[in-house]
Amino acid sequence: MERIESVKNPKVKQWKKLHTKKERENTGTFIIEGFHLVEEALKNKEMIKILIVSEEISLPHTWNVDNISITFVTKDVMKAISDTEAPQGVAAICEFQTTYTPEKWTKVLLLDSVQDPGNLGTIIRTADAAGIDGVILGEGTVDHFNSKVIRSSQGSLFHLPIVKGSLDEWLNVYKNNNIPVYGTSLQNGVSYKEVPEADRFCLLLGNEGSGVNKDLLDQATKNLYIPIYGGAESLNVAIAAGILLYHLRK
Amino acid sequence: MERIESVKNPKVKQWKKLHTKKERENTGTFIIEGFHLVEEALKNKEMIKILIVSEEISLPHTWNVDNISITFVTKDVMKAISDTEAPQGVAAICEFQTTYTPEKWTKVLLLDSVQDPGNLGTIIRTADAAGIDGVILGEGTVDHFNSKVIRSSQGSLFHLPIVKGSLDEWLNVYKNNNIPVYGTSLQNGVSYKEVPEADRFCLLLGNEGSGVNKDLLDQATKNLYIPIYGGAESLNVAIAAGILLYHLRK
Repeated sequence: MERIESVKNPKVKQWKKLHTKKERENTGTFIIEGFHLVEEALKNKEMIKILIVSEEISLPHTWNVDNISITFVTKDVMKAISDTEAPQGVAAICEFQTTYTPEKWTKVLLLDSVQDPGNLGTIIRTADAAGIDGVILGEGTVDHFNSKVIRSSQGSLFHLPIVKGSLDEWLNVYKNNNIPVYGTSLQNGVSYKEVPEADRFCLLLGNEGSGVNKDLLDQATKNLYIPIYGGAESLNVAIAAGILLYHLRK
Repeated sequence: MERIESVKNPKVKQWKKLHTKKERENTGTFIIEGFHLVEEALKNKEMIKILIVSEEISLPHTWNVDNISITFVTKDVMKAISDTEAPQGVAAICEFQTTYTPEKWTKVLLLDSVQDPGNLGTIIRTADAAGIDGVILGEGTVDHFNSKVIRSSQGSLFHLPIVKGSLDEWLNVYKNNNIPVYGTSLQNGVSYKEVPEADRFCLLLGNEGSGVNKDLLDQATKNLYIPIYGGAESLNVAIAAGILLYHLRK
């Protein structure tokens, strides 16, 4: 059991750096904060490398932290590694999962350049609720280990397989597996209500401003749109994800 | 055409105060910023009391600003009245609409204590897209003229009638008009898929943490839930609004 008092401790410096994508990718780890997220991570214990606890905090009695390496820190150290204004006093350094098998998935969400962290987190939470097999993040999509994404995913990041990859290549894999690929577009295509619910589908959603890249849309089996009945120009991408995933899944 | 150079001008001081709910309610006005929102407001010209333009900005030629009172201001004044870090250079003081007739609505969304401004804005945008008649905000729901709400509504606030009121009283009005009232709850009720699409419905959504008040749920014709198939504990309230409104409406 370690104890760290100084914000200048090299470990503290390294943990702070985990708020950058570069450091996360270099180390294969990311940082989470707060009781709810740490509790979700504890359901997947092997992901937690270090549990960091502020010394004035008592851990809930219901938490099973056997075999987990705990480091106690001062309030100031916790504040230094946190990116929230009022840290709750618990954090954890977690390891990326690398054992996913997207080639076996049959209900898949593909995201092309979704840029807002809140949107990505909400999409992950929604996809988890809808019970799909996993999410593939194409180039240009915000890093899912960004702390705002983790917060708005409400811990679903720990249940739902998420990988980064080439959407172009994965679309080919799924089409070869006879899984219909549904693009989404404001202009063309058919109303989503015309597509039946199914056990197998790939749904492709795109950037908040410009939508899905045209080359990807051209590869889709069908392109879907959500009708706009009122005065709004479009729907938020996370809302579109919710409507479409809940419509498509059996 | 007026020109204001000093951030100490009394008008500037009053406009800044419009970022508080109290000042908005005292004056019956609210402030909006940015090209997209002002453009949306211009579709409803009578709502705009003053158009405020930073002197280095050229208004788009497509904007028809006939009969609109314009005040030119310096960059510093614009910065003082803005709540964004990089103001776009256009803002407007708008008047509340007071001519809505909720008693005639047949497709209605009622919100009980929705507290996050981003959620409320996204719900308003979604409800506008779904083409419902209007939204009633119960006590405890964040003020819809809050600038974060306006931003995430993407201007739908200017298309969709929104009023504040007693949910208890309005539920009675709609039930007396033979409009089915659907509450939402994680625990009880029927899956939303069992309820058919319809021309007439009231949908009742609640607080992010605690859901809809029990007394209101007891008044509902039926309570609906959205099945959770995966590991998430719940859905974001705006996502739930999207799934349910698009399911219910014809």
